[in-house]
Amino acid sequence: MAQIIRVTLAELTEKTGIEYRGPLLELTGLNTLQNAQEGEVSFLENKKYINDLKSTKASAVFVTPEMADIVPDGVIALVDEEPYLKLALASKLFALSIIDEDAAVAKIGEGTIVAEGANIAKGAVIGKGCQILSGVSIGPDTLIGDNTIIYANAVIYHGCHIGSDCIIHAGVVIGSDGFGFATTKMGTHVKIYQNGNVVIEDDVEIGANTTIDRAAFGTTLIKQGVRIDNLVQIGHNCIIGEYSVIVAQVGIAGSTELGRNVVMGGQSAVAGHIKIAPFTTFAARSGITNNVKESHKVYGGAPIMEIRTWLKLQGKLARLVK
Amino acid sequence: MAQIIRVTLAELTEKTGIEYRGPLLELTGLNTLQNAQEGEVSFLENKKYINDLKSTKASAVFVTPEMADIVPDGVIALVDEEPYLKLALASKLFALSIIDEDAAVAKIGEGTIVAEGANIAKGAVIGKGCQILSGVSIGPDTLIGDNTIIYANAVIYHGCHIGSDCIIHAGVVIGSDGFGFATTKMGTHVKIYQNGNVVIEDDVEIGANTTIDRAAFGTTLIKQGVRIDNLVQIGHNCIIGEYSVIVAQVGIAGSTELGRNVVMGGQSAVAGHIKIAPFTTFAARSGITNNVKESHKVYGGAPIMEIRTWLKLQGKLARLVK
Amino acid sequence: MAQIIRVTLAELTEKTGIEYRGPLLELTGLNTLQNAQEGEVSFLENKKYINDLKSTKASAVFVTPEMADIVPDGVIALVDEEPYLKLALASKLFALSIIDEDAAVAKIGEGTIVAEGANIAKGAVIGKGCQILSGVSIGPDTLIGDNTIIYANAVIYHGCHIGSDCIIHAGVVIGSDGFGFATTKMGTHVKIYQNGNVVIEDDVEIGANTTIDRAAFGTTLIKQGVRIDNLVQIGHNCIIGEYSVIVAQVGIAGSTELGRNVVMGGQSAVAGHIKIAPFTTFAARSGITNNVKESHKVYGGAPIMEIRTWLKLQGKLARLVK
Repeated sequence: MAQIIRVTLAELTEKTGIEYRGPLLELTGLNTLQNAQEGEVSFLENKKYINDLKSTKASAVFVTPEMADIVPDGVIALVDEEPYLKLALASKLFALSIIDEDAAVAKIGEGTIVAEGANIAKGAVIGKGCQILSGVSIGPDTLIGDNTIIYANAVIYHGCHIGSDCIIHAGVVIGSDGFGFATTKMGTHVKIYQNGNVVIEDDVEIGANTTIDRAAFGTTLIKQGVRIDNLVQIGHNCIIGEYSVIVAQVGIAGSTELGRNVVMGGQSAVAGHIKIAPFTTFAARSGITNNVKESHKVYGGAPIMEIRTWLKLQGKLARLVK
Repeated sequence: MAQIIRVTLAELTEKTGIEYRGPLLELTGLNTLQNAQEGEVSFLENKKYINDLKSTKASAVFVTPEMADIVPDGVIALVDEEPYLKLALASKLFALSIIDEDAAVAKIGEGTIVAEGANIAKGAVIGKGCQILSGVSIGPDTLIGDNTIIYANAVIYHGCHIGSDCIIHAGVVIGSDGFGFATTKMGTHVKIYQNGNVVIEDDVEIGANTTIDRAAFGTTLIKQGVRIDNLVQIGHNCIIGEYSVIVAQVGIAGSTELGRNVVMGGQSAVAGHIKIAPFTTFAARSGITNNVKESHKVYGGAPIMEIRTWLKLQGKLARLVK
Repeated sequence: MAQIIRVTLAELTEKTGIEYRGPLLELTGLNTLQNAQEGEVSFLENKKYINDLKSTKASAVFVTPEMADIVPDGVIALVDEEPYLKLALASKLFALSIIDEDAAVAKIGEGTIVAEGANIAKGAVIGKGCQILSGVSIGPDTLIGDNTIIYANAVIYHGCHIGSDCIIHAGVVIGSDGFGFATTKMGTHVKIYQNGNVVIEDDVEIGANTTIDRAAFGTTLIKQGVRIDNLVQIGHNCIIGEYSVIVAQVGIAGSTELGRNVVMGGQSAVAGHIKIAPFTTFAARSGITNNVKESHKVYGGAPIMEIRTWLKLQGKLARLVK
């Protein structure tokens, strides 16, 4: 992502209504405790991540009063009863422009065909031998490799990367905002601006009207050789392993990781923050709510069980009503 | 909606093949028995709504011969064996133009950016400070508030209203026709033209490729502060309460009403004509087929049960196959 | 489809790495054993279709060594351990151009309105009295009948046919590639180019953001009078019978055939290669994995059972946790 946004700690504390007196810092973004680097701000609300707090490299962290003492030396504690809400308020300061007038003119590689009515924003860089059909929208600072085909009316938001030899079908949306917000005590919602991006590696095919959300921070990653069917939803910060096969109407919630060659049958779904071992297969309409640690197994049902068990259960249920 | 369509009762009876001799009336639309006003035509086919017939303010009503005597004084009975089919035939007479050449030039507020390749029809009125990206289509007589962002290739049909501070993601379709038709005895279908609209209040975010259908008559209403994820389907005449959260791939069938702060997990679905109490939460893939009257409860399963009961049932089923 | 592609058998065997010495043939396409005509190439990998091999009219067939002797006289056996993978490699030779610069200028019938910003490719033929709204993309060599309405940003790929009196809502994608590939022993995928098309007969309405995939070979067929709701997925080579009703978010996997007047409730799904008898009704979220042979029945559940049985089962399960 070519856009770089800098925010001073003073602006951040003013915007989030937190009292702070201390060193003046320049901040470059938000991130998880685990992934944050110097210059980044993080947060802790769920005690489950307390060890991540102890080892974080973030420069500042939103925490509750009871956690303030655990913040490591050298990390600034931004103390508030509602750290996640403060993070949401802070996220707006780092929001990327969706129109980037300062970017350079788009670069289009040799042999690439851009149909009339396609819209390529400033700052985009497109490789050689691509076909970009009518009505396609490519956002600012988006990079596309060589020999990639993007069918009519697909939309790639700002700052995303698409590899070479990909096929993106009509109506696909890549890089729309992840579904992130903090809810206040009054029940209203404060948007967490999604300042990450989507990276799609080489040789990926994505079916019509599928949606892949950009990361809140960091990257939603679709690895090499993945095949995604139509009307699939992939949430923010997911990682889809190499050569995985995602059949139509599957839903994958945020921050879930699939190993390589995972197969998800039609209309199946995975909850958020789940890890699936490589070479796992899920039957159509499976519902996965726990990690799968062992490779090369086949599952069905919701919640999932091994496919033989699930078939046995269907037999038992059929006998119940005979 | 700026378009006003007037049809005489003579045209209506001719078009629907109903014999009628009586006063000459000018009709302004179709509506339910309950909501119809003077000048509107309604229908009764399902006896369940017989009390609505007794108190209707409609000027004329399609009814079966056996219901003809119950039509109140002053309301014209349009008698036919298939009232719903006649309504379908009549609906075409009130169909709104999807291209309105007579409308005034669109008004675009101060500071609003309309990207090249966006299409704004005559009669549209857009507020201040909006960002309308490439390929967006805004239909005739559609109104949009201030500071709303509409991402590439979203489509807003004619006559819809979008509030201020909304974010509409790429590929969203607002105001497409509800799924309405009458089926003849031969098994063919006659379209019920969807002459209502969609109203979206302020501070609503709608995820990529979500679809929200216009009302058959009246309005499909998304209230203030609602958050809708990607690939969600909201049927005609639904009302979604304030600050409700609708996760990806949810389906809500026609005429269903959600109270405020209802949460619907991913891939869950509600049948048509259902009412859900405020502050109700449904787990992913819940299937709701009955009204929920008590607030602040959590449900799962299809058909739904309280979440603890559902978890208990899963335990029992797991033991069945051990 | 106006595009005709000819490949010599020599090119085909070179591309797929198969040793062959024999007569020089010119090939016109790929097809199933059952539907192949003279000049076409087919394959057999699943022994279930061995009788189709015996009666095929294909000119050449990819087969495993153990099947080579069963190939009928006059049909050329292209022998390989992985016939399906070879078919995938061969399919690229027959891929249709998605941009057809050689085609004639598009023909637009009398009274048809094409909005500014719609893109109609060379070789397309559109009938009389149609309305084509902004951002619509109509591919090369696509045919559209009379009085059809295509709403904003819908996409019809190359070589598809749409009948008269159809209504195609915004964001619909017709003719995108079916989800077809062969997987190598290494777990990588080789695309099967989808060289067939989609044919939609007269009086069909298709809801917003629905996707209908083109056939691998031959045609995906939506018959007269069908009603399809929003966000539905219809796989390659499906046949949807006359006047069938497909409610929102339904998924129909490849090569499945529905008889006339089949009703599929919301979020229901059918596996691939299934046949459903006419006048069958499926409740919402049914999951169909076997053929339905008897007409006029109603089913629910996944896997499906008669609706009364399914309701009885729900009652039993509810009692389990009381």
